[in-house]
Amino acid sequence: MQAQLIALDWGTTSLRAYRLGENGRVLEHRSLSAGIMQLPSTPRPIAGQMCSDGYELAFDEACGDWLDAEPRLPVIACGMVGSAQGWREAVYQQTPASVSALSSALVTVRSARGVDVHIVPGVLQRSELPNVMRGEETQVLGILSALPAVEAAQPLLIGLPGSHSKWVRAVDGCIVHFDTFMTGEVFAALSTHTILGRTMQRSDAFDAAAFDRGVAVAHSSAGAAGPLSTIFSCRTLGLTGSLSGSAQPDYLSGLLIGHEVVALAQLLRQQATDLPAVILIGSGPLLERYQRALDANGFPQVTLAEQATERGLWQVAVQAGLISSISAAAARPLSVEN
Amino acid sequence: MQAQLIALDWGTTSLRAYRLGENGRVLEHRSLSAGIMQLPSTPRPIAGQMCSDGYELAFDEACGDWLDAEPRLPVIACGMVGSAQGWREAVYQQTPASVSALSSALVTVRSARGVDVHIVPGVLQRSELPNVMRGEETQVLGILSALPAVEAAQPLLIGLPGSHSKWVRAVDGCIVHFDTFMTGEVFAALSTHTILGRTMQRSDAFDAAAFDRGVAVAHSSAGAAGPLSTIFSCRTLGLTGSLSGSAQPDYLSGLLIGHEVVALAQLLRQQATDLPAVILIGSGPLLERYQRALDANGFPQVTLAEQATERGLWQVAVQAGLISSISAAAARPLSVEN
Repeated sequence: MQAQLIALDWGTTSLRAYRLGENGRVLEHRSLSAGIMQLPSTPRPIAGQMCSDGYELAFDEACGDWLDAEPRLPVIACGMVGSAQGWREAVYQQTPASVSALSSALVTVRSARGVDVHIVPGVLQRSELPNVMRGEETQVLGILSALPAVEAAQPLLIGLPGSHSKWVRAVDGCIVHFDTFMTGEVFAALSTHTILGRTMQRSDAFDAAAFDRGVAVAHSSAGAAGPLSTIFSCRTLGLTGSLSGSAQPDYLSGLLIGHEVVALAQLLRQQATDLPAVILIGSGPLLERYQRALDANGFPQVTLAEQATERGLWQVAVQAGLISSISAAAARPLSVEN
Repeated sequence: MQAQLIALDWGTTSLRAYRLGENGRVLEHRSLSAGIMQLPSTPRPIAGQMCSDGYELAFDEACGDWLDAEPRLPVIACGMVGSAQGWREAVYQQTPASVSALSSALVTVRSARGVDVHIVPGVLQRSELPNVMRGEETQVLGILSALPAVEAAQPLLIGLPGSHSKWVRAVDGCIVHFDTFMTGEVFAALSTHTILGRTMQRSDAFDAAAFDRGVAVAHSSAGAAGPLSTIFSCRTLGLTGSLSGSAQPDYLSGLLIGHEVVALAQLLRQQATDLPAVILIGSGPLLERYQRALDANGFPQVTLAEQATERGLWQVAVQAGLISSISAAAARPLSVEN
């Protein structure tokens, strides 16, 4: 099948490349470790010239052969590649942010082989405490644009669990507000660089009971002490013989994700009495943890969605006119699993 | 002046030794780095025998010459020296804990020179999330026993800021409840081992405005997001040009101490409508930070107290009958500064 677009999800530590066909169907994809903090550095010839630029080298590794075969394919990218430390800065767009707003603000960098790379800007929220994202906005818009119109019109909460979790509120296909929680990075710092790590025994198996216990504590009246206090119970429950060393990592994970979800519910209830439907983006074990914590905290409907980035990049490229109109006409409906 | 007691405050990283005279007056004091995690290891003769035991060596360094001069002085110690990893384990006493309860539960270890060291047990609270302390109980009881009776009868909150802050509720001279916040250790882990540290510029000067700003955020409606979320604002306020790198450490400190004090107030209001009077134990710049945060969060009366450990050790020794009754009769009134 003929390709229509090359889509790059270019973050801090990784670079994912997609060759997309008609209607955004994924024909081929690759995952490289060439994020903007670990670009390749060995010079080699590109388009007949020796090249030592890390961005050019990574770009060529990711999709040089695809462009050799089809030199006129448009290229779009999102993520930290558009940051001030990126290939070219794509200045943040402010909330509220829609597909059309982002599509009309693409920034272009011309690569050594003469192909333009169109970079999607990140989103900035100028609230009392500002918030920023790069890459997640494209995932969110990919999910929103593939929803049935009646669902997309409702207030939605879209969660992107990760080292820095993002929680995005959307109405009518538009990003209106988002919050960041550093839960994943805090978990790593506490486990590795505080007294809590000393009694922990690591294991690859997920201890669901220990995790759920941590979630329940965060949700209980004892949880009102907040995470700076409850985390000490990893140690004291161990000292009193009621939490084994091997259960401590997942208990701490449950405490922190539990506090995140409790705080999130509190923020949402400042706006409305009912908790909104939630769509979680991503895959893998971290999503299971968040799903358990959301269920335990009374979120009534949690749906998982995948392939958000490639869908979002496709939608932005269509809206920006990078793709021929016949091919772009239909977007596949989003498949979700409960 | 003749000495009456040798009092040791023996923690994880330090060992403080006091030679106390009549009524607990401090005649001489020393500070060593020989905490239980960094005991001396070079063998040398003690009481005519070569000795390589770290506790014996540290004890001899701390007060061997005092005991050479006055071999019959009683010796009392508190802190991690009584933990399972200490010189001799003094099993935790449960809350509620009073001077008399602790005094009747001293554990004795006979040193190589034949002198008994009386170790004060720590305190364990068997609440839903258990809590433990070793050393702080002695400080708290030292403060309580020196208060005028009318003040000691009121509900009091005693704060011991540190790497792990303790907040102790006392009624009628008795420890009835306490909470631990790992704020100091979390601050160090976040500053050194997360993305927040990358944009921070360290300085020895205290940036009071940045600190107060962090406290105010924790207290505001934006603070409802909790510390896992608000800490990200160190970075985003920096990105948007409204928080310099040099202001970021004290802003983060204000955020975390602010969240601690907000959570503490919330816990207290689960029990009573009025916030209790607070006594802060310790000295130095950390106390100033806590005093600012308590003032900003509506705590009506905050008093500072010093010399808590030596007072507490003296009181426990008197109660345990280690000191002749004439000398022990009067305890000095507590001097406080507002």
